Amino acid sequence: MAVLRAFESARAKGAEVPEVVCFEKQDDWGGLWKYTWRTGTDQYGEQVHCSMYRYLWSNGPKEALEFADYSFEEHFGRPIPSYPPRAVLHDYIMGRVEKSGVRPYVRFETPVRWVEYNDATEKFTVRVKDLKADRDYSEEFDYVIVSSGHFSTPNVPSFEGLESFPGRVMHAHDFRSADEFAGKDVLMIGSSYSAEDIGTQCIKYGAKSVTFSYRSNPMDYHWPDTFSEKPILTRVEGTIAHFADGTSKPVDAIVMCTGYLHHLPFLPDDLRLKTKNCLYPGDLWKGVVWEGNSKLFYVGMQDQYFTFNMFDAQAWYVRDIILGRLPIAPAEERAADIKSWMDREAASTGPAYDIDFQADYVRELIAATDYPFLDVDAVAALFKQWKHDKHDDIMGYRDNAYRSVLTGTMSPLHHTKWMEALDDSLEAFLAQPETA
Amino acid sequence: MAVLRAFESARAKGAEVPEVVCFEKQDDWGGLWKYTWRTGTDQYGEQVHCSMYRYLWSNGPKEALEFADYSFEEHFGRPIPSYPPRAVLHDYIMGRVEKSGVRPYVRFETPVRWVEYNDATEKFTVRVKDLKADRDYSEEFDYVIVSSGHFSTPNVPSFEGLESFPGRVMHAHDFRSADEFAGKDVLMIGSSYSAEDIGTQCIKYGAKSVTFSYRSNPMDYHWPDTFSEKPILTRVEGTIAHFADGTSKPVDAIVMCTGYLHHLPFLPDDLRLKTKNCLYPGDLWKGVVWEGNSKLFYVGMQDQYFTFNMFDAQAWYVRDIILGRLPIAPAEERAADIKSWMDREAASTGPAYDIDFQADYVRELIAATDYPFLDVDAVAALFKQWKHDKHDDIMGYRDNAYRSVLTGTMSPLHHTKWMEALDDSLEAFLAQPETA
Ligand SMILES: Cc1cc2nc3c(=O)[nH]c(=O)nc-3n(C[C@H](O)[C@H](O)[C@H](O)COP(=O)(O)OP(=O)(O)OC[C@H]3O[C@@H](n4cnc5c(N)ncnc54)[C@H](O)[C@@H]3O)c2cc1C
Ligand SMILES: Cc1cc2nc3c(=O)[nH]c(=O)nc-3n(C[C@H](O)[C@H](O)[C@H](O)COP(=O)(O)OP(=O)(O)OC[C@H]3O[C@@H](n4cnc5c(N)ncnc54)[C@H](O)[C@@H]3O)c2cc1C
Ligand SMILES: NC(=O)c1ccc[n+]([C@@H]2O[C@H](COP(=O)([O-])OP(=O)(O)OC[C@H]3O[C@@H](n4cnc5c(N)ncnc54)[C@H](OP(=O)(O)O)[C@@H]3O)[C@@H](O)[C@H]2O)c1
Ligand SMILES: NC(=O)c1ccc[n+]([C@@H]2O[C@H](COP(=O)([O-])OP(=O)(O)OC[C@H]3O[C@@H](n4cnc5c(N)ncnc54)[C@H](OP(=O)(O)O)[C@@H]3O)[C@@H](O)[C@H]2O)c1
Repeated sequence: MAVLRAFESARAKGAEVPEVVCFEKQDDWGGLWKYTWRTGTDQYGEQVHCSMYRYLWSNGPKEALEFADYSFEEHFGRPIPSYPPRAVLHDYIMGRVEKSGVRPYVRFETPVRWVEYNDATEKFTVRVKDLKADRDYSEEFDYVIVSSGHFSTPNVPSFEGLESFPGRVMHAHDFRSADEFAGKDVLMIGSSYSAEDIGTQCIKYGAKSVTFSYRSNPMDYHWPDTFSEKPILTRVEGTIAHFADGTSKPVDAIVMCTGYLHHLPFLPDDLRLKTKNCLYPGDLWKGVVWEGNSKLFYVGMQDQYFTFNMFDAQAWYVRDIILGRLPIAPAEERAADIKSWMDREAASTGPAYDIDFQADYVRELIAATDYPFLDVDAVAALFKQWKHDKHDDIMGYRDNAYRSVLTGTMSPLHHTKWMEALDDSLEAFLAQPETA
Repeated sequence: MAVLRAFESARAKGAEVPEVVCFEKQDDWGGLWKYTWRTGTDQYGEQVHCSMYRYLWSNGPKEALEFADYSFEEHFGRPIPSYPPRAVLHDYIMGRVEKSGVRPYVRFETPVRWVEYNDATEKFTVRVKDLKADRDYSEEFDYVIVSSGHFSTPNVPSFEGLESFPGRVMHAHDFRSADEFAGKDVLMIGSSYSAEDIGTQCIKYGAKSVTFSYRSNPMDYHWPDTFSEKPILTRVEGTIAHFADGTSKPVDAIVMCTGYLHHLPFLPDDLRLKTKNCLYPGDLWKGVVWEGNSKLFYVGMQDQYFTFNMFDAQAWYVRDIILGRLPIAPAEERAADIKSWMDREAASTGPAYDIDFQADYVRELIAATDYPFLDVDAVAALFKQWKHDKHDDIMGYRDNAYRSVLTGTMSPLHHTKWMEALDDSLEAFLAQPETA
C-alpha cells in the first residue's frame, strides 16, 4: 500500500504517473493486520496470510511507526495511548490508505502466481489468478515491485517425538486465541518477539505455565514464576519435553515461535530473493533494487525495528527510480554499497547497534526523496527507550507512554493496565477519557 | 503409484515402455497415508498434504480395497483382521510399490508448479520445484497424468461469530490427535465420513460430548447418548453454538468436517478439472481422459467407495491408451458416454445404487486391460454388507470380519474391540494370535 500511496502523492503534486496495478491475494487490504479466524488454507485453498491473533497489542510504541504524513492524532482526532491493540492499528493504517484514494488500483482476491522477465521485450509477464472468477490471466508490466511480506510462511523445524505427542503442536502463524491454553502448561520454542508475546499472552489469559526453549540465547527478562527458560528441546517422549541441559518438563501444548521463511513461490530463481530474516538482505541495492534486474524491486524484506515509516521510505525511493528522478548507480558502486551495509550488520553488538543501523538506512532513503520530514534520530531514541522499558518490566512495558515524534504530543496512559485489559476491541480501547 | 505399477507390469511382460517420470511433493510415497504431525505448511513452506490423523483405522473393510495383484495375505504372510489402522494399510501399500521396483522413477520433494501444452510441439512443459536444491526447472512430456489426490485442500465455510469464538476452530484436514479434546464438548460440522470418524474417535479418546451439525441430512446412526445431531450451525456467540432449529449448545471446539476441494493450482484453466466431489466428474471420458486434450489424464478424481483397486483399474486403462493398445473414441461417442454416466449418477437413490454404479465403472475399465481378475460384484456386495454393519452398530462395526475376495480366506477377528484398541501401531495390531 505504501507504494500506491507514494505514486498517489506524486500524482497529487502534478507528476505524470504510470499505470499502477496492485494484485492482492486477500479480499481487502491490511496485510498481516487483517485478522481472520482461519488457519492453513482459506475458502479458495490459498495459504492463509494472517499471522496475527486475538488479543495482539502492538509490541512497540505506536510513536515509532507513525507515518510521517498521517499522525495518529489526525486519524483518531485526539491523542491515544502508546500501545494499541491490533484493531486500532488496523483502523489507522486503513484510514490512511482510504484517505489517499488508491483502492481502485487494487485487484483483490488475485494472487500472483508467476512472474517472468522477457529479455526481448524488456517486460515482465505476470500471471495471476482471479479467485472469485476461478480464472487465470496474464498481463505485462515494465516494473514489478514485490511487497508480499515475509512473516506469513512459517519456519517449522522438527523435533524427535512430535509424531506421538498427544497435545497440540502449532506454529505461531496458526496461533489465534490464548483462551484455549487456559489451565495448560505450554512450551514455546524460540526466543524472539513471537515467543515473548504469545508466552506473556498465554499467562495473561490463564495458562498454568509457560516454558521457553531457546536455540541461541535466553531472553533473560525478569520473568514471573509462571515462566521458565530452557535451552533447546532435544526430544519429546509422550508429554515430556526434554531439553539440552538434561532437564525435562511435562507439557500440554507446543507452540513453535521459530520465525518465518521468505517464501516467494511466484518468482523464478533468477528473480527470487533468498535470505534469512536480517536487517540487510544481500542482492538488494538500497535494500530495494534487485541486483539481477533493476526493474524489479522489493519493499519490506528486511527484519524490522522501523516498520510503516521504513516501508514508506522504501516506497518513495522506488517510485522515484521508476519516475526517473533517482538514478541507479553503476554495478560496482552498488555492490560496494551493499557490501558495506552487510559488513556493518555482521559487526552488530546488539539491539542498540541494530536500531542505529536501521535508522541510518531509513534516513538515507528519506533524504533522497520528497517524503515528509521524519525525525529518525528521535524514533531511534524511542526504540532504545522501549528496549529499556521491556527489560525493566516485561509484563508491564505496555503501560508506558511516549511522545509523538511528529506532533510533539505526549500520549495519555491507557485506562487499564495491559495485564488487566482483556478486551482488545477498538471500542474498549478508545472508551478512555480524552485526557489521562 | 498405481500408474508406475501399471507401466512396470507391462514392462515385465515384455512391452516397450516409454520413459516415465513421477514428480512427488512429499519426501516419500504413501500419499495421504503418510502421516505427519505437521499441519498448514511444511519445512519448505509447501502446503501439508496429509489429512490423516493418529488413531485412524480403515473405515471400510480392507477386503474391499485389496489390490488384485497383491493380497494382504501375501504381504503379511498370514490373514489379518478386516479393519486395520493407518500404519498397517500404509505398510501394505508400500510393500506393493517397493516390490514392483518403481522407486527410481520418482523424484521426491519435487512439486509440480505449472503445466502448459504447446500446440506447435504437441508436448507439455512441466515446471517443477526441486525443494531440496531450492531450484526451479522445466521438462517436456508427451503425456501428463494428474494423480495428486483431492482430499488435501480443505473446503472451509465460514459462520457468523467464529472470529470471536474462544476455542479451537479447525478443519478435519488439520486434525491430528483426539487426545486434545478429552473432557471437551466438541462440535463437528458435516455429516459424512470425516464427521463420523473424527466424532466417534473423540468419544473413544475421552471427549465429553460430540455434536454433529448437518447441512443436508443427519447420519441417523444409533448414536450413544454422548452424541447428538443438529441441523446446520447458524452462528456462534461466545462459546454458544446456535443451530437452524433454534436450539443451542455451549461447545469448546469446532471441527469442520466439510470435505475437500479439487485444488489444482498447477494447471491452466483449459486443462484444469473443475468438479465437486462426486462419482462421475464431467469432462473425463472413462473417468480418466481429459476432454479438452486427450493426452492429459486424471486418476483418482472420483469420490470413492472403491479406492486402491479402482486407481489400479484407471492406471492400467491410461497406460494402455498411452501404449496405443486402447483407442480413444470419437468426440461424439465420448460425450454421449460421459453424459450417460452423469445422468445415471444424477438418478441415484442412495448408497446401494452408488456402490453398483462405481462397481460397473470399475468392471468396465478392468475388462479392457490385462489387470488381473477382480470379482467386482463380490466387492460391491461387501460394501453393501459394510453399510448394513455400520447401520447396526456405528461404534462397533469395525469388530466385524469379512472374507477376502482374492484368496477366499476369512479374516480373523481382531484381538481387541475397536473401542478398546487405543494403540494404533502396526506392532500392537499384528501382535494378535495367528488364528482367531
Ligand atoms: C505476529 C506479528 C505481529 C506484528 N506486530 C507488529 C507491531 O506490533 N508493530 C509493527 O510495527 N509491526 C508488527 N509486525 C510486523 C509486520 O511485518 C508489519 O507491521 C507489516 O504488516 C508488514 O507489512 P508488509 O506490507 O511488508 O507485509 P504484509 O502485512 O505481510 O502484507 C503483504 C501483503 O501481500 C499479500 N500477498 C502475499 N503474497 C501474495 C501474492 N502471491 N499475490 C498477491 N498478494 C500477495 C498479502 O495478502 C498481504 O496483504 C508484526 C508481524 C507479525 C508477524
Ligand atoms: C482422512 C481420510 C481417510 C481415508 N481413509 C481411507 C480408508 O480408510 N480406506 C480407503 O480405501 N481410503 C481412504 N481414504 C481415501 C483416499 O483418498 C485414498 O485411500 C487414497 O489415499 C487416494 O490416493 P491418491 O493417490 O488418489 O491421492 P493421495 O493419497 O492424496 O496422493 C496424492 C499424492 O500427490 C502428491 N501431490 C499433490 N500435489 C502435488 C504436486 N503439485 N506436485 C507433486 N506431487 C503432488 C501428494 O504429495 C500425494 O503424495 C481416506 C481419505 C482421507 C482424506
Ligand atoms: N505485535 C506483537 O506483539 C508481535 C508479536 C509477535 C511477533 N511480532 C513481530 O513478528 C515478527 C516476527 O517475529 P518472530 O519472533 O516470529 O520471528 P524472529 O524474530 O525471526 O525470531 C525467530 C526465533 O525462532 C528461533 N528459531 C528459528 N529456527 C529455530 C530452530 N530450528 N530451533 C529453535 N529455534 C529456532 C530463533 O532463534 P535464534 O535466536 O537461535 O535464531 C528466534 O528466536 C517481528 O517483526 C515481530 O516484531 C510482533
Ligand atoms: N478411514 C477413515 O476412517 C476416514 C475418516 C475420514 C475420512 N475418510 C475419507 O475421506 C474422504 C472425505 O470424506 P469427508 O467426510 O471429509 O468429505 P465428504 O464425504 O466430501 O463430505 C463432506 C461433508 O461436508 C458437508 N459440507 C460441505 N460444505 C458444507 C457447508 N458449507 N456447510 C455445512 N456442511 C458442509 C457435506 O454436507 P452435504 O451432505 O450437505 O453436502 C458433507 O457432509 C472420504 O473418501 C472418506 O472415506 C476416511
